[in-house]
Amino acid sequence: MRLARIAHPDGVAFASIEGDGDEAQVLEIADHPFGKPNFTGRRWPLADVRLLAPILPTKVIAVGRNYAAHAQEFGNEVPGEPMIFLKPSTSVIGPNAAIKLPAVSTRVDFEGELAVVIGQPVKNVPAARAGAAVLGYTIANDVSARDLQESDGQWGRAKGFDTFCPVGPWIETAVDPADLAIRSEVDGEVKQDARTSALVHKVPELVEFVSAVMTLLPGDLILTGTPEGVGPITAGQQVSITVEGIGTLTNPVQAA
Amino acid sequence: MRLARIAHPDGVAFASIEGDGDEAQVLEIADHPFGKPNFTGRRWPLADVRLLAPILPTKVIAVGRNYAAHAQEFGNEVPGEPMIFLKPSTSVIGPNAAIKLPAVSTRVDFEGELAVVIGQPVKNVPAARAGAAVLGYTIANDVSARDLQESDGQWGRAKGFDTFCPVGPWIETAVDPADLAIRSEVDGEVKQDARTSALVHKVPELVEFVSAVMTLLPGDLILTGTPEGVGPITAGQQVSITVEGIGTLTNPVQAA
Repeated sequence: MRLARIAHPDGVAFASIEGDGDEAQVLEIADHPFGKPNFTGRRWPLADVRLLAPILPTKVIAVGRNYAAHAQEFGNEVPGEPMIFLKPSTSVIGPNAAIKLPAVSTRVDFEGELAVVIGQPVKNVPAARAGAAVLGYTIANDVSARDLQESDGQWGRAKGFDTFCPVGPWIETAVDPADLAIRSEVDGEVKQDARTSALVHKVPELVEFVSAVMTLLPGDLILTGTPEGVGPITAGQQVSITVEGIGTLTNPVQAA
Repeated sequence: MRLARIAHPDGVAFASIEGDGDEAQVLEIADHPFGKPNFTGRRWPLADVRLLAPILPTKVIAVGRNYAAHAQEFGNEVPGEPMIFLKPSTSVIGPNAAIKLPAVSTRVDFEGELAVVIGQPVKNVPAARAGAAVLGYTIANDVSARDLQESDGQWGRAKGFDTFCPVGPWIETAVDPADLAIRSEVDGEVKQDARTSALVHKVPELVEFVSAVMTLLPGDLILTGTPEGVGPITAGQQVSITVEGIGTLTNPVQAA
């Protein structure tokens, strides 16, 4: 199932998306999308609604240096254990919303990532049971002010600006994250082209590791890390990240 | 006004605390404590309720190395701009709740801090108007797994464990944060003894800096940094942090 959050003619709702292309329909979900969704019976053509960030997480946990070739492109080693940091919930935006470049940074990079969406409150989940904790998978862009990331040491500012966490276009509940193609394009030019099978610490291990530290709540996101090929984005460009079996997350870039 | 969150005989509520010692009373607030509180008319002796974390923040922004003498005790320089990082909202506990030591760490430290509580949604607040964005001030303990902090590089794990952000005992709305005594004790022995006038980046500057990065929401916390004298806590100990004009935050320490 593809779970989305939409602005429809009467308001905002969670929804399921059925069909593809011009035939795609959105089916409104009452309340929330966790557990077995309760449909209201209202539906619209996908073209008649606006897709929002598919979830509003209470927290966003991101993993650094989790593809060896990306760690190497900045001269870093792959950490023996996942290196985690947090992005603020206020950085989340949805598909087609603008990434706004803060004036204080001279280099802002895209980072295409597979994102895990948590489905229930969990603590200390073993990797073997991680799947039961997961609602589904979506796409995220871990936008990073590269200059501030280097000068600050801690990444709270460089990765925490408003609009620095595009998420979407929806949550796919029926995909296996183990070996998916992931591709990032800036204005149609392919910049990242990898597979999630190259993740150093795999999704089940990440769920185990993070949930051993902190309680995960429904809707929380784990950004699994970005592959090699990151680079700058500038105002007027458009960045698209495609993950096989999920879809494409596209965002324009603007000056703040 | 001292704003608290309480468990009373019939449930959980925000409240205002009036009076001191055996005379102290809690006055129940309807809904939330932002703006002009709306009192329900119900009240209890303070001794008959349990104080909870005075607020459940959507995010906790913490500032590293913001007292020169503390930066020096670990051989670090004071950063020219505030160095910010995030603690997950799931790390927040209230007064008298136990700090739980994760088995994966061999050294967990207390860090007593003055905390700013945001009162309204704000972005890009100039320092001169920071006061209007603030609901009040409370006390926080930025509990840190010092060994993991050093080995991980990013502090998402070391400072993100459940129970690693004790907050309370309440929010004082009528205190000037510029020059308050701050003192931390472990089992009654004074470990930190400083004044907030020694903050490198002062409260108004921190509100300006953080709000230039991310939208701050009502209840969000800014932990302003810890003075010199941090050190380990072990199971069975009790850590108390006192900030002049606010009160004392006390938490026992347990093995997880």
